[in-house]
Amino acid sequence: MDIFTALVHHPVLNRTGGTMTSAVTNLDVHDFARISRTYDCAGTFIVTPVTEQLRLVDTIRGHWAPADSPSGQSTNPSRTEACSRLSAVPSLEAAISTITEKTGHTPLVIATSARPEHRLPEHIALSWNDARARFAEPGGAALILFGTSWGLTREALAQAQAMLPPVNAVPARAGYNHLPVRAACAIILDRVCGDR
Amino acid sequence: MDIFTALVHHPVLNRTGGTMTSAVTNLDVHDFARISRTYDCAGTFIVTPVTEQLRLVDTIRGHWAPADSPSGQSTNPSRTEACSRLSAVPSLEAAISTITEKTGHTPLVIATSARPEHRLPEHIALSWNDARARFAEPGGAALILFGTSWGLTREALAQAQAMLPPVNAVPARAGYNHLPVRAACAIILDRVCGDR
Repeated sequence: MDIFTALVHHPVLNRTGGTMTSAVTNLDVHDFARISRTYDCAGTFIVTPVTEQLRLVDTIRGHWAPADSPSGQSTNPSRTEACSRLSAVPSLEAAISTITEKTGHTPLVIATSARPEHRLPEHIALSWNDARARFAEPGGAALILFGTSWGLTREALAQAQAMLPPVNAVPARAGYNHLPVRAACAIILDRVCGDR
Repeated sequence: MDIFTALVHHPVLNRTGGTMTSAVTNLDVHDFARISRTYDCAGTFIVTPVTEQLRLVDTIRGHWAPADSPSGQSTNPSRTEACSRLSAVPSLEAAISTITEKTGHTPLVIATSARPEHRLPEHIALSWNDARARFAEPGGAALILFGTSWGLTREALAQAQAMLPPVNAVPARAGYNHLPVRAACAIILDRVCGDR
């Protein structure tokens, strides 16, 4: 299955539960591209409605693209490789339609959250093993959503058909759950596509 | 078992295989603290011989510490909690002796590397399951080393008694292995202490 990841900057929750647009950070863009490429994701979307930030992502990608910057490529070819599957889109809808056009499949949209109560009644509750088995099948496409700031809003969650469980330590070590979104992406892709 | 993590800035490899000292970055410090706290590590060491960078880590920790900065704590208590287990040390030896003093156990030092050929003949080759089983036992201490830049030098590797396997995707998705060190830390702690 073709797996895609999306790092969502809007709509996401702010500290008090309202809807906000978070800022794109250079480092998250690189980390999402490198982590997604490690697990052979077919693409990584940086989702933001802010025109200047869409341009920022294009500039980052351009820096490492062979055509635009031969020096970027020769300095760090593995980063060029990672960034070649990166794109910036203004909305989740745009990410979904890009995948549908590119693969010929409407993707299964899978939400992630640190909070189990964020799962909507209509979501399929995917276990790690379910997801692992589905992703190993040939054909089809999936899009895994990662929310920045305090997580995906209800509106963003409603665009998903399925949800993965929260990531936690074993019960004896559990109790603190404030992973950076880039760490959550790494762990979740490893749980579903890692050689563990 | 008490698990500690160390983010090593010296001695690490440069692009051409020489020894270098990499720069401490604000974001790696936060990410290591938060990721390590999520898996209930007893402590996280930022290892650098550069005095000003040791001070930088203390400043970051101080910003979130309740005594030094009540505003840091009230803004983000989970970050205060993560940074409370953080310390900056000038060398791997200092990290090891701090653990020995603190826990009464000489830690089992475990190296990590993206390259299997970095394993030294004297290293115990720990499987993920071996490490998971050891870490679940009561008593004892372990220190997991993560190298910045192009990884730990032979000198740093020689301070470890054991090594974990490289992290990879399942064979059908393998072939690219350039994870950010903070992503490697997240995945490795999840493989050995996650609720997967």
